[in-house]
Amino acid sequence: MNMKNRLIILTGFFFLVTSLPALAADPLPSWNDGISKQAIISFVAKVTKKGSPDFVPVADRIATFDNDGTLWTEKPLYIHFLGVIDYMKEQMEENPKLAEREPYKSVAGKDFTYFTELYENASYESLVSQLLGVPFGGLTKEQYEDWGRKFLAEFKHPKFKRGIKGLIYQPMLELINYLEAHGFTVYIFTADESAFLRLAAPELYGLPTQQVQGTSMRNEFITTKDGNAMLVRSYRMDYLDNWAGKPRLIEKVIGKKPLFAAGNSNGDQHMLEYAALSGGMSVWVHHTDDKREVAYDKHTDKLVPLTKSGEIMAIDMKKDWKIVFPAQ
Amino acid sequence: MNMKNRLIILTGFFFLVTSLPALAADPLPSWNDGISKQAIISFVAKVTKKGSPDFVPVADRIATFDNDGTLWTEKPLYIHFLGVIDYMKEQMEENPKLAEREPYKSVAGKDFTYFTELYENASYESLVSQLLGVPFGGLTKEQYEDWGRKFLAEFKHPKFKRGIKGLIYQPMLELINYLEAHGFTVYIFTADESAFLRLAAPELYGLPTQQVQGTSMRNEFITTKDGNAMLVRSYRMDYLDNWAGKPRLIEKVIGKKPLFAAGNSNGDQHMLEYAALSGGMSVWVHHTDDKREVAYDKHTDKLVPLTKSGEIMAIDMKKDWKIVFPAQ
Repeated sequence: MNMKNRLIILTGFFFLVTSLPALAADPLPSWNDGISKQAIISFVAKVTKKGSPDFVPVADRIATFDNDGTLWTEKPLYIHFLGVIDYMKEQMEENPKLAEREPYKSVAGKDFTYFTELYENASYESLVSQLLGVPFGGLTKEQYEDWGRKFLAEFKHPKFKRGIKGLIYQPMLELINYLEAHGFTVYIFTADESAFLRLAAPELYGLPTQQVQGTSMRNEFITTKDGNAMLVRSYRMDYLDNWAGKPRLIEKVIGKKPLFAAGNSNGDQHMLEYAALSGGMSVWVHHTDDKREVAYDKHTDKLVPLTKSGEIMAIDMKKDWKIVFPAQ
Repeated sequence: MNMKNRLIILTGFFFLVTSLPALAADPLPSWNDGISKQAIISFVAKVTKKGSPDFVPVADRIATFDNDGTLWTEKPLYIHFLGVIDYMKEQMEENPKLAEREPYKSVAGKDFTYFTELYENASYESLVSQLLGVPFGGLTKEQYEDWGRKFLAEFKHPKFKRGIKGLIYQPMLELINYLEAHGFTVYIFTADESAFLRLAAPELYGLPTQQVQGTSMRNEFITTKDGNAMLVRSYRMDYLDNWAGKPRLIEKVIGKKPLFAAGNSNGDQHMLEYAALSGGMSVWVHHTDDKREVAYDKHTDKLVPLTKSGEIMAIDMKKDWKIVFPAQ
């Protein structure tokens, strides 16, 4: 046997030995064995098996996940909104006159009618601009990110008494890793602001900022006389990433259809249908567990018929998950 | 020596032997030795050398390239526009009454005053909507892509008598590959429509669609009664990726600053300044070669002072490039 042949055999043996434990391990250890887990594993096997009629090349293995209520808890309120309210209260302490006008007035008076009215009247641009735009308008990208990082580092959940690392769904993190290990590129498409979630997602989920997409505020690009280039937040919403806005943004950013999608509410309906009706798999993270998290069905009525018809698959958090949050 | 040690040595030897030719080869063979080539190599060495004060981690090595006039020829007219005019002529053959109204009237009469007026009046949304929206409005994503792929496959350049593969700048393709080999993620940010360029860029430059960003038309997302999900092109411009729109879109899509940027006209000014003023390197592809391509200086007046001050570096196509187009 010459050196080259020996090398090939040795290298092959080496990879075989080091790969065996990985193959043997359960890739979704926090999922109970059952229909949901099996369906996910079967789907991934089907689209990644060379020669299979359902085989999809790596370049087209796109997965799109919602975030609030899909990857981390959204109750009692979006984590981001808890931060916005905090920030607005700080601003009112510095300048009490702010409380005389919206959006501060509603926060000061703890009466959110103004916001719910904007929502009911489909004035989404106004609603987002008031809540995500006004308090942070005029900050540079760096100033905003400094605020966001500080808030995220210090945040403790009012009910679960955990920081953000303890508020993600461990089974969903495993699902992200499982898909990535099978050649998927995983994106988040959140109705929340991508500029906020990008401060947390790389550490929480291992997803780089360019794989975190969502609602955006309009930034202005400025070059100053002293030779700096900067982005400055305006007060205006630029793009609302919810409902049909999700598939539209998927096309704008990626230009490909999702092969796998996950969401938890009506705002995800179109994204879930986009994947499901394009030969992909879509799952609805259904909040059924009032002991370990919060059971609720608000804004999910559009998903119920899609689950019944088999277009999308419901994940029952109570039945399907061994644990909800990561062990601490 | 036990088996494991022998394996390590053999494997190390194997990689050394196979890597040597790659290390020894000139990474930019179509570039003449000179200041431009050296500056690029020095910059990449500086930001990729561990321990260097200028070291940038792989995750932040973002490069952004313009396309028309930067990666492929844009004369006598954007390749895309030549296709749009072709398509509009086809439509007028089928329906001659179209020639009675804009934008067809201008194309039929070969008088582009209507378009130049829109441009001069800064009615960019109207201009883009008329040229890229109207002719293709109502087509599904798939129908549009079928048209685009067919056009690109059949296109022959009126002057250079080459198909699209022969119209890219070989030195710039080498630059893309060189940056990628050093951990950069390379994006295109074109003022043209990303939906069009995405049909060519994966094959031409090896860049997947999600790394091809640009101007976009508004798509509508529709689910049909027979169970299909589709995106349908509207007549409306959604986003104009030019001037300050480039850094704004870089932030929207990537969320990071570019470390390297390349462009060729005023529309790239803000993107070039964004990289240059953020500690990166920016280059201006200056069209100086009337023999091998076309020499022109239209819409470059904003770049001249930036080159003189040293903020950005001009690449002189005539002096700096051994060849312009790939050998055929």
